[in-house]
Amino acid sequence: MPSYNAPVDDTLFLLNDVLDYTQYSGLPGFSDASPDLLEAILREAAKFAEDIAQPLNLSGDQQGCFRAEDGSVTPPKGFNEAYQAFCDAGWGTLSADPAYGGQGLPHTLAVIFNEYLSSANMAFAMYPGLTAGAVAALTLHGTEELKQTYLPKMIAGSWTGTMNLTEPHCGTDLGLIRTKAAPQDDGSYKLSGTKIFISAGEHDLTENIIHFVLARIEGAPAGTKGISLFVVPKHSLDADGNPGALNGVSCGALEHKMGIHGNATCLMNYDEATGWLIGEENKGLRAMFTMMNEARLGVAVQGLGQSEVAYQNAAAYAKDRLQGRAMSGPKSPDKAADPIIVHPDVRRILLQIRSFNEAARALVLWTALKGDVSHRSDDVKTRQKADDMMGLMTPVLKGVLTDTGFANTVDAQQILGGHGYIAEWGMEQFVRDARIAMIYEGANGIQALDLVGRKLPANGGRAVMSFFAEVGAFLKEIEGQEQLSGFAKPLTQGLEHLQQATMWFMNNAMAKPDNAGAGSTDYMHLFGLVGMGYMWAKIAKTVVSKLDAGAGDKEDWLKAKLVYGTFYMERIMPETGAHLARISTGADTMMALDGDAF
Amino acid sequence: MPSYNAPVDDTLFLLNDVLDYTQYSGLPGFSDASPDLLEAILREAAKFAEDIAQPLNLSGDQQGCFRAEDGSVTPPKGFNEAYQAFCDAGWGTLSADPAYGGQGLPHTLAVIFNEYLSSANMAFAMYPGLTAGAVAALTLHGTEELKQTYLPKMIAGSWTGTMNLTEPHCGTDLGLIRTKAAPQDDGSYKLSGTKIFISAGEHDLTENIIHFVLARIEGAPAGTKGISLFVVPKHSLDADGNPGALNGVSCGALEHKMGIHGNATCLMNYDEATGWLIGEENKGLRAMFTMMNEARLGVAVQGLGQSEVAYQNAAAYAKDRLQGRAMSGPKSPDKAADPIIVHPDVRRILLQIRSFNEAARALVLWTALKGDVSHRSDDVKTRQKADDMMGLMTPVLKGVLTDTGFANTVDAQQILGGHGYIAEWGMEQFVRDARIAMIYEGANGIQALDLVGRKLPANGGRAVMSFFAEVGAFLKEIEGQEQLSGFAKPLTQGLEHLQQATMWFMNNAMAKPDNAGAGSTDYMHLFGLVGMGYMWAKIAKTVVSKLDAGAGDKEDWLKAKLVYGTFYMERIMPETGAHLARISTGADTMMALDGDAF
Repeated sequence: MPSYNAPVDDTLFLLNDVLDYTQYSGLPGFSDASPDLLEAILREAAKFAEDIAQPLNLSGDQQGCFRAEDGSVTPPKGFNEAYQAFCDAGWGTLSADPAYGGQGLPHTLAVIFNEYLSSANMAFAMYPGLTAGAVAALTLHGTEELKQTYLPKMIAGSWTGTMNLTEPHCGTDLGLIRTKAAPQDDGSYKLSGTKIFISAGEHDLTENIIHFVLARIEGAPAGTKGISLFVVPKHSLDADGNPGALNGVSCGALEHKMGIHGNATCLMNYDEATGWLIGEENKGLRAMFTMMNEARLGVAVQGLGQSEVAYQNAAAYAKDRLQGRAMSGPKSPDKAADPIIVHPDVRRILLQIRSFNEAARALVLWTALKGDVSHRSDDVKTRQKADDMMGLMTPVLKGVLTDTGFANTVDAQQILGGHGYIAEWGMEQFVRDARIAMIYEGANGIQALDLVGRKLPANGGRAVMSFFAEVGAFLKEIEGQEQLSGFAKPLTQGLEHLQQATMWFMNNAMAKPDNAGAGSTDYMHLFGLVGMGYMWAKIAKTVVSKLDAGAGDKEDWLKAKLVYGTFYMERIMPETGAHLARISTGADTMMALDGDAF
Repeated sequence: MPSYNAPVDDTLFLLNDVLDYTQYSGLPGFSDASPDLLEAILREAAKFAEDIAQPLNLSGDQQGCFRAEDGSVTPPKGFNEAYQAFCDAGWGTLSADPAYGGQGLPHTLAVIFNEYLSSANMAFAMYPGLTAGAVAALTLHGTEELKQTYLPKMIAGSWTGTMNLTEPHCGTDLGLIRTKAAPQDDGSYKLSGTKIFISAGEHDLTENIIHFVLARIEGAPAGTKGISLFVVPKHSLDADGNPGALNGVSCGALEHKMGIHGNATCLMNYDEATGWLIGEENKGLRAMFTMMNEARLGVAVQGLGQSEVAYQNAAAYAKDRLQGRAMSGPKSPDKAADPIIVHPDVRRILLQIRSFNEAARALVLWTALKGDVSHRSDDVKTRQKADDMMGLMTPVLKGVLTDTGFANTVDAQQILGGHGYIAEWGMEQFVRDARIAMIYEGANGIQALDLVGRKLPANGGRAVMSFFAEVGAFLKEIEGQEQLSGFAKPLTQGLEHLQQATMWFMNNAMAKPDNAGAGSTDYMHLFGLVGMGYMWAKIAKTVVSKLDAGAGDKEDWLKAKLVYGTFYMERIMPETGAHLARISTGADTMMALDGDAF
């Protein structure tokens, strides 16, 4: 049976020591989250993830969800009780607006909780996870009446939220949406159409489900300019705001998926369902994007979460499984064989994953803090700069953490050999669950295009220049520090490759957009490598200064981090050169053939 | 519903034009396989794969195998009829020894059939696939009596074979085997023990199943020096050699696996089952390795096979799915959107897979032909050189074609977005099925160690030197050919990286074996990149000379190959530098930590 221990000490080290979290204590919400309270919350979060959510992960995968003939859906055994515990503890309220029952704490805390919960049980985490995105969209774009009606219940978790974008013929290209909304005299709309791949679309965890639906108002312009966003409750609300009669929306089928079996992925039929407009007519995509940006960081964290739990179980197996002897001579001569962790190739895999996990977590926190600053600072310039960084890093994190996170679950599975392929060890579930994160909330190819096509050129490249300046300044700061040269050199090299690639796009992609598309995925990964390399250098700097100051019983723990980081610099960073080489070849070869040559 | 078209034209082009298959016509069996007959056989093979095996792939995955309480196992619907058709057409007899009912054709033909069948239905292909390995072991190591008893039935397909190595506590390290064999007065043995992960361990496709079992004879030395190989029929044979009473072997459970659901993966209980020794006492591993080397090439081909079928379905989807517009302006202005194949990032994925598939197929055929030469040439030196190359390339193919083949199924799945994640499109099955090929028949880490630890240093590096000489001579041959410079340059660079890495091992791994283990997987992939790069350069040379001679209606088809190859050189070969950089960092960082730091 797989197990999970939330990496609370690692998280606290990153927040307190590496990212100097207390520097933000002047911001609203941060003052309430003192280091002591922070630690207390994370330890509680760990308990919820480890003791409540994780034990339901394997059984939830094996049972899946059940749809009865009347369209009602039952999640796996235990999910109802776990969801109730989630609500009772108020986990959904952490960073939500106090005006609607939230605690107003830094959103960074919600991101951390989300990592732990995703590691423990990704299918379960998606029920409240989608609600959080819906809450964000409604908070920013809804009328006060809609907010009063829905937010308190959704924040408390009494009602969950969904996102309804995809239709059978339309995924990435939302301009093709056909679901119709007919205006009614009372200001509401009647929605009709079919949506697919709707996560948590139907279930009995809550007394109501609030669907956020993209549809086209009758007579709206064609394409993306005619899409509006609606809120459509499963049960219409009575005069007191309580769930009443069923609205015209129902689950037509459950999808048969590769993984996340514990989450109900539904085909939803809208048959004159009553909905209410969120934001302006025909401006639905803008409102939906709020929800998606929120969701994208959440999905990035799922990639990290699956990578972390897969690592933990692979490492435990490698320390336990006796098989063969070390090439340098027996390490456990009293036993029939050595544990397989004596083998360099096993350590290579483990270090590859671990050196990713720690840097990815750092980059998530770095980005989440920028997000908090961008929403909470009272200084316009500070907000703008933080927003730039958050916007730049969101597609990088979504694409890289889910691509590499998935690859890591595959590598971790490999450590167990044949046992990794069968269900009872849980490793193959991590692979199947992690796979979806590369696809939903904008497939990773779309993230790469968002990075290269939108985020990079926005405001004359202001965001990327600001990132380069920050890393450059840090490199200047550690220049000449002998103990950090193993970090400074590869990071300098990686940054140069990233700058060269950026320059290449500036020179070659304006006139010929295909050159941007041809290098976009490589650029996203190059960016991720440098971003995580930057995090490792920051971690190393912190570790070295703490060791110099005397670290007591933390010494081995800190020194190990230098080894993980050194591995990253030696073995992962060399990839930046290959990415640059690929980007520089441009689109000519790729576009040379007619479609029928494929 | 997924589909499959066997790449017969590609195979014929490689055999006839690139690898000059007719040069071997003097070898036994080759004279019977004229180009006309070869094509006729491949077209029939394609029909069997496309029309009989492929239609059962998705349904076989969804139904899986069923074990009744009495231990009997039923494969998915249609497998019995398909297996009967396989036997009726004599597909198992292709390259088998004519003395026992085989056709004696080149084994290369069986390898090609195996690719097509693996693409069409990997779970089905494993039933006859394991029989072929068992036949090889028995042919080389069995007594004439055992051969007469078992080979004709197994070659005809009336009986299938299995390989029983793994036990719950022992996989890679076969020295830990506990299954016991007690000698009996009649020369037989009674076997008792438990074996796990036994593919095709029990089923009702045939009237008998012949288990090849590793066990320890009572009183045998500890470790690998005390392992013997036995043949244990499911039904004991009566005086006429027909299946009689059940022997003491039964299926205790079916494993719940990530994929290959159509194949019965069994836990097998041996309870005083009667078996017969194959080869010498305590020399069982040697006999089993014959079987495994055969099997490893077969598994490599599974990796290629899944990559090919995943490619075909992703390419078809990309040409069909309308979504968004080309960045360079609408390509299908009369439709609601362009097919997604207009996007460079979609083409990047497709070309990545296709440029691998064609080169991997070439390298498989190149190696398979060496295998045929090593068994059939009457010149000792020729045999030895071919055997060197076959031995060197087998772990490379097994490791690289299954690692990259799997990664390709994941990339292909990505093209379909959410549709790739649900069962009905079949893409997620390719991922789940392909995953096992990285694990069984020696996990890929073991292949890398076999390459670096055994194949590289064997006979003073004779095999690798011979490979370098062959590639070097080819580069000399195309030197100065302007049209081929885009191939010659990256291949030269890649070969240099490979040679530097080889030299690094010679200088650093003798004294410190961990340095070999630390770089083994990177070296295996570096080797594969150069091997496939060599194949692309050979293909390009052939294409250019055919185009120069006038290629008629084949012109576009041939020119497209130059584009796939150019993509490989531009985008895939840059990886060689990163591998070399990683190898050169050695084992120090990897081995720096105690086990509990993981």
